[in-house]
Amino acid sequence: MKCTGSIDTREVEELYINIDPIQAGGRLTNEAQKAVIAYSDGYSVCDNCLKPFRLDYIRKPPIAEFHEDCAKWLNMDQLRVVPGARRGFQAVASSLVQKGDPVILTALSHYTEFVSVEQSGGIPCEIPKDENNHITGDNAAERIEEVIAKFGKTPPLLYVEHVDYQYGNIHDIKGIVKAAHQYDIPVLLNGAYSVGVMPVDGKALGVDFIVGSGHKSMAAPAPSGVLAANEEYADVVFRTITAKGDVTGRTFGIKEVEMMGCTLMGVTVMGLIASFPEVQKRVTEWDREVEHSRIITDALTSIEGTVCQSDSPREHTLTRINTIESFDKVAQNHKKRGYFFSSELKKRGITGVIPGSTRVWKYNTYGLTRKQTDHVAASFREIAEDNCLSVI
Amino acid sequence: MKCTGSIDTREVEELYINIDPIQAGGRLTNEAQKAVIAYSDGYSVCDNCLKPFRLDYIRKPPIAEFHEDCAKWLNMDQLRVVPGARRGFQAVASSLVQKGDPVILTALSHYTEFVSVEQSGGIPCEIPKDENNHITGDNAAERIEEVIAKFGKTPPLLYVEHVDYQYGNIHDIKGIVKAAHQYDIPVLLNGAYSVGVMPVDGKALGVDFIVGSGHKSMAAPAPSGVLAANEEYADVVFRTITAKGDVTGRTFGIKEVEMMGCTLMGVTVMGLIASFPEVQKRVTEWDREVEHSRIITDALTSIEGTVCQSDSPREHTLTRINTIESFDKVAQNHKKRGYFFSSELKKRGITGVIPGSTRVWKYNTYGLTRKQTDHVAASFREIAEDNCLSVI
Repeated sequence: MKCTGSIDTREVEELYINIDPIQAGGRLTNEAQKAVIAYSDGYSVCDNCLKPFRLDYIRKPPIAEFHEDCAKWLNMDQLRVVPGARRGFQAVASSLVQKGDPVILTALSHYTEFVSVEQSGGIPCEIPKDENNHITGDNAAERIEEVIAKFGKTPPLLYVEHVDYQYGNIHDIKGIVKAAHQYDIPVLLNGAYSVGVMPVDGKALGVDFIVGSGHKSMAAPAPSGVLAANEEYADVVFRTITAKGDVTGRTFGIKEVEMMGCTLMGVTVMGLIASFPEVQKRVTEWDREVEHSRIITDALTSIEGTVCQSDSPREHTLTRINTIESFDKVAQNHKKRGYFFSSELKKRGITGVIPGSTRVWKYNTYGLTRKQTDHVAASFREIAEDNCLSVI
Repeated sequence: MKCTGSIDTREVEELYINIDPIQAGGRLTNEAQKAVIAYSDGYSVCDNCLKPFRLDYIRKPPIAEFHEDCAKWLNMDQLRVVPGARRGFQAVASSLVQKGDPVILTALSHYTEFVSVEQSGGIPCEIPKDENNHITGDNAAERIEEVIAKFGKTPPLLYVEHVDYQYGNIHDIKGIVKAAHQYDIPVLLNGAYSVGVMPVDGKALGVDFIVGSGHKSMAAPAPSGVLAANEEYADVVFRTITAKGDVTGRTFGIKEVEMMGCTLMGVTVMGLIASFPEVQKRVTEWDREVEHSRIITDALTSIEGTVCQSDSPREHTLTRINTIESFDKVAQNHKKRGYFFSSELKKRGITGVIPGSTRVWKYNTYGLTRKQTDHVAASFREIAEDNCLSVI
């Protein structure tokens, strides 16, 4: 018998201030931690599953209520839970994209969007970013025109990042939607870095779909996420099964094809639900998070040679920083090479920067207290000073 | 702010003997319960993700090792973790089935197989069951012939349940595989009720794919599961992304299209891994489970008018029982109607029978101790006697 079951306890979140770019928004709330313990067993939410036997109809625990409330909260018509944002992309692409269709995404699109396009047989076409690392309505319109001319057909779908994973910049969704809708192209908002951390209003943005990530930004266990759609497309993406047993005559109720029936039957959906009150509250406190992001980014850019590659001043907690002319210069002559940096951070109780990285890297300050923020800011300055970099 | 976050604690497994047909094999082991607490946070397994940045390459925690060990354990060449068995079906169907292709499944196939066929654009064609509620090699061969004649093409895929969800019967997989392979049709074994509870040897059975369910039979949280493939098809189903950013020139490494990149980035995969040593052990103790199943089934069939609709003597822990001429007759005149039965069971600390069900229902005895088994058996007899049904 193999012993892969012997697992060290993970204590990263207990012992360190974690500024990992993808982990910050997915730390569980206390309520979610409790729900995880109570609903850890396999099909734990199915105790009271009644007709029509579908996850989003279960009222005890309040899964149906969550579906309704979360749709309202995003100001969208309908919502389903999915095993990660990527499975939301897959559901939409699989519903709207035919083999050989050009699909619009952007120069800042996450790889999972590309995977979903390939999975559906579509051909990905990127909207270029502008000189400020933004996707604009103008660039979107221009690219759409070009793609229509090239392929002789209108793309059935456009993906856009509300906040992109590379820079953490917030993009002009309204402008992009305006461009797309002029060609009747539905817009899927990738809210992996917005839904659950900052306010998102689907109707105000004008998008047709919103995808959010539970484990990235909604304080939920993995894999989890939400896919919201407006009525115009809900019937397509949430279409129910029509297949029938040709021998038995069996039919299969109202199971949804793209959801594969039910999606999150236990711990994942319960984590999402348990965190939801706190998640709703925390998005209203986004200003404080941005303030903390700026304090830390300002500390870094106060170090000679350090450049913030994201929008400045910061409007989000995810930031891309270039330390080629600061910490990387130190690394060249340090006996620990690039590892000196993560090592010095670790000494100060800070983790989440890839060990060895001293050139271009990312961090996410989401969820830090003011005290932790000041400590992280001071730590960067200290490490710089200790290594003879001047700090303004 | 809505308060869907207020959740009652679930204590079903602590307070009751649960004989629910789908929940028995998905109760967590103690090791999994501990892992769930340690890895509950969103992207908790990504702390040490290094190049090539894919879940199944992570060595700390031992995710890579689990992939290797679990493939060996099933005697298959390659394995991936997936968000539930259904997502394994989806990956295979999406890889092998073209729009309009006939796909073979059976009169006892689970609805998620039909969903996956519909999702891929295929047309489901059932192999009829025989008079003993079995799928046989002969019936498979006959149906394949018929489907080829009707559609003018060979089905690209055949699904078969190792153990079906309706009767809990174990089917002649070798015979069915022999029939399918004569037409070069690959066979996907739905092991939702076998992988993790009873011994499964892919090479001995001759199947091309095995799908197992973490939350149904591998003592893991939902959604989780495994998809194993032999080399002949592994490259197809686990093909890596070829898409490229047409503006940025970005490529996306070795992310797999049907896996959507990574699948289970936290609590779900860790539950699966933590339970794995115990799961490997428990499948070797399958005889004891069958013995317990027989004790309880014998108790039920000792009640006048009660018929076991599954194979008898039982070879599996999931059983379909017909109590139309026993407990349902009692229900007709009982002031609680059909609810008397679940209510009487509950008084005796037994749950998992749908409240109100007294006609044809299912139970699963998996994981009961001998003492619990005897108590459940005695309880059925007692409830019968208390309600004037004669018990042999």
